[in-house]
Amino acid sequence: MKAHIITIGDEILIGQTLNTNAAFIGEKLTNSQIQVSASSVVPDDEEIILKEFKRTLDSNDVVIVTGGLGPTHDDVTRKCVVDFFQTELVENEEVLSDIKKFFESRARILTETNRSQALVPKIAVPIRNRRGTAPGYWIEQKGKIFVCMPGVPHEMKNMMETFVIPKLSGMLERKSHISISNLLSTGIPESNLFDRLGNIDELLQGAKMAFLPSQFGVKIRITVECATEEEANNKLVEIEQKIRAKVGRYIYGKNDDTLEGVIAKLLIDRGLKIAVAESCTGGLINNRLTNVSGSSKFLERGIVAYSNAAKVELLHVDEDTIQKYGAVSMEVARQLAEGVKAISGSDIGLSVTGIMGPTGGTETKPVGLVYIGICDATICTAYEYHFGDDRLLNKDRTSQAALEMLRKNLLGISYED
Amino acid sequence: MKAHIITIGDEILIGQTLNTNAAFIGEKLTNSQIQVSASSVVPDDEEIILKEFKRTLDSNDVVIVTGGLGPTHDDVTRKCVVDFFQTELVENEEVLSDIKKFFESRARILTETNRSQALVPKIAVPIRNRRGTAPGYWIEQKGKIFVCMPGVPHEMKNMMETFVIPKLSGMLERKSHISISNLLSTGIPESNLFDRLGNIDELLQGAKMAFLPSQFGVKIRITVECATEEEANNKLVEIEQKIRAKVGRYIYGKNDDTLEGVIAKLLIDRGLKIAVAESCTGGLINNRLTNVSGSSKFLERGIVAYSNAAKVELLHVDEDTIQKYGAVSMEVARQLAEGVKAISGSDIGLSVTGIMGPTGGTETKPVGLVYIGICDATICTAYEYHFGDDRLLNKDRTSQAALEMLRKNLLGISYED
Repeated sequence: MKAHIITIGDEILIGQTLNTNAAFIGEKLTNSQIQVSASSVVPDDEEIILKEFKRTLDSNDVVIVTGGLGPTHDDVTRKCVVDFFQTELVENEEVLSDIKKFFESRARILTETNRSQALVPKIAVPIRNRRGTAPGYWIEQKGKIFVCMPGVPHEMKNMMETFVIPKLSGMLERKSHISISNLLSTGIPESNLFDRLGNIDELLQGAKMAFLPSQFGVKIRITVECATEEEANNKLVEIEQKIRAKVGRYIYGKNDDTLEGVIAKLLIDRGLKIAVAESCTGGLINNRLTNVSGSSKFLERGIVAYSNAAKVELLHVDEDTIQKYGAVSMEVARQLAEGVKAISGSDIGLSVTGIMGPTGGTETKPVGLVYIGICDATICTAYEYHFGDDRLLNKDRTSQAALEMLRKNLLGISYED
Repeated sequence: MKAHIITIGDEILIGQTLNTNAAFIGEKLTNSQIQVSASSVVPDDEEIILKEFKRTLDSNDVVIVTGGLGPTHDDVTRKCVVDFFQTELVENEEVLSDIKKFFESRARILTETNRSQALVPKIAVPIRNRRGTAPGYWIEQKGKIFVCMPGVPHEMKNMMETFVIPKLSGMLERKSHISISNLLSTGIPESNLFDRLGNIDELLQGAKMAFLPSQFGVKIRITVECATEEEANNKLVEIEQKIRAKVGRYIYGKNDDTLEGVIAKLLIDRGLKIAVAESCTGGLINNRLTNVSGSSKFLERGIVAYSNAAKVELLHVDEDTIQKYGAVSMEVARQLAEGVKAISGSDIGLSVTGIMGPTGGTETKPVGLVYIGICDATICTAYEYHFGDDRLLNKDRTSQAALEMLRKNLLGISYED
């Protein structure tokens, strides 16, 4: 089954918006054994869109379109679908009912413009939108499948996951099976990871591997193709085990895991509570931990102690220590962790203090210098890190290093390399 | 001048890497008055690449290709260029000298594989690579321009900025000028915005407008094409003024502005300090405010008061009030804002409390219910909001609504719709 992805929208073409939709759809299709033959981006222009529908449907089994389904004048996709399939718009009762409920739940008044979104091409099975108002369309014609979804990422994602992928998967005839796994590492550079894995060909035995680095770590992608699903999965497990044997201490999870999610599970399983005192990350670590549903079970409070006064008043850091070593120091990191543990009555206190840039660096304390402190029932310690000169990347890197220190603490892995 | 952008690479197609190259090139071309007609992504497959070269050159003046120029087996673009233009590879002395210097400067040994990168299609003018080893190609044939660059973003960007854009701009006969502006709105749904703008054609007078919604608000993009730059800019200003006259209170900025950046500027200009007490957003609002460089000028501390104990102990919320109205209530939001203002000695206190989901909702207090409190020198108040059922989107929406309330406070705009 060959698929093409079309993204409609000037904003993508002129570089105002990154095409995250095509990436998401490409990944979901690939994971479902559907080959993505190519993808394209076209402007909000009816003539060009119609040509692209024709060109891509001619040479693919599936065409997936996003964008241009909103309620305003510049949303031309629905009109193009009607023209292309020579069909007409009909009001769909189920969709209208969804739209009405959506507006009721938000205590908003339904306008004519909104109501018009219940008009669906007659030939299409509407795909319900549980996160917005514009429905998607599923059209089957002459053995081809044509899917159309809104461009708003979270609306599209929900439709892909709950409707499109299950339906396509059900239609698939499988001749071989591809299994993919992504191991998530952090705290080790790509080249070191590569060196530690040794002879790659021997390790992979015909499977494929790719390294995808970011400020959060390196994703190791392993792709295995075998005659059956069982065979592919077994081979994948075998390779994974070999990789873990060599660099396992850096691997915090796989696939859709997040570091904060992995930590949340560890904390909840053990009935432990954590509190975080953030200086330079300004709330990012607490934000990440509370992204996990159920975070109130392990996180009771957090402090953004940006100023020295906040460090002293809220977290009982010693004023003389700040005077002597500076707010960005090993000793202050340690006291921040100790303070936040004490005031919250948590089992573990975590802290960060550093210089995120672009300004504020000095000869002895350059931009990118960070101290991370951790304090549990038995030990209170801090470590020094050196990151780069981009403020937002430094915040990400610092939050990741702090959470990774917490993970190592919980699993009894040494902090030292 | 019409251009098409081709990105070559499986990693883009299967969604492991976001296509930032196409976005960058699209933006640079647009800013240089070159129309991007469409863009596409194709796999590392010679047959498909050759077909794509033909298809796109047939209908465009310029085709810009990135990816697949590296030294390893899966980089097939150079071979495709040689085949497509029926030319041959010749060693280019200038390129070879660049490669040698690159390796010398990094104290690395030049291998045969590296040396082979000095082989350039005879028909091409090589584009020097100042950040890596693979040169780009500039090919002119039959009145068409074909440009090929490596996929490594910083290598490609340097070639675009120092060679491709200046050369294309020099060839351009300017018959008209395009100016683009993006107005950033929040707190009003796309459809309401559309309705309030009234007669769009009258408003635009031939210009184009697009709405780009997300959980943070709706971006309004206006595109104007006129004979001269001055004329286009004047018309743009005129349309912007008309839009602002109708929906100006919802517009917090334009183009690359962020809501937190706009607020930071207002706070710094007035010498005001803000403190935020976050319950349901768990640190996100403080994180956004500290993303702005120089945030220590206006933000001194922040509290993530997740538990009732934290609300009472740190922010002096009345325990009886929590008992009577619940932690998610108008009254508690008000007291949180008051408390954080008081303990930090700030000029303004901001607070949020709510139910982000997916669990924790009740009949009377459903998931998505949020109260935002704000307290300044003269007034302490709170408002009720209703968002959706996705935890992370709700955190984004809540942070945006709270920051927007702060902006309105600073500008003396009424909170009521």
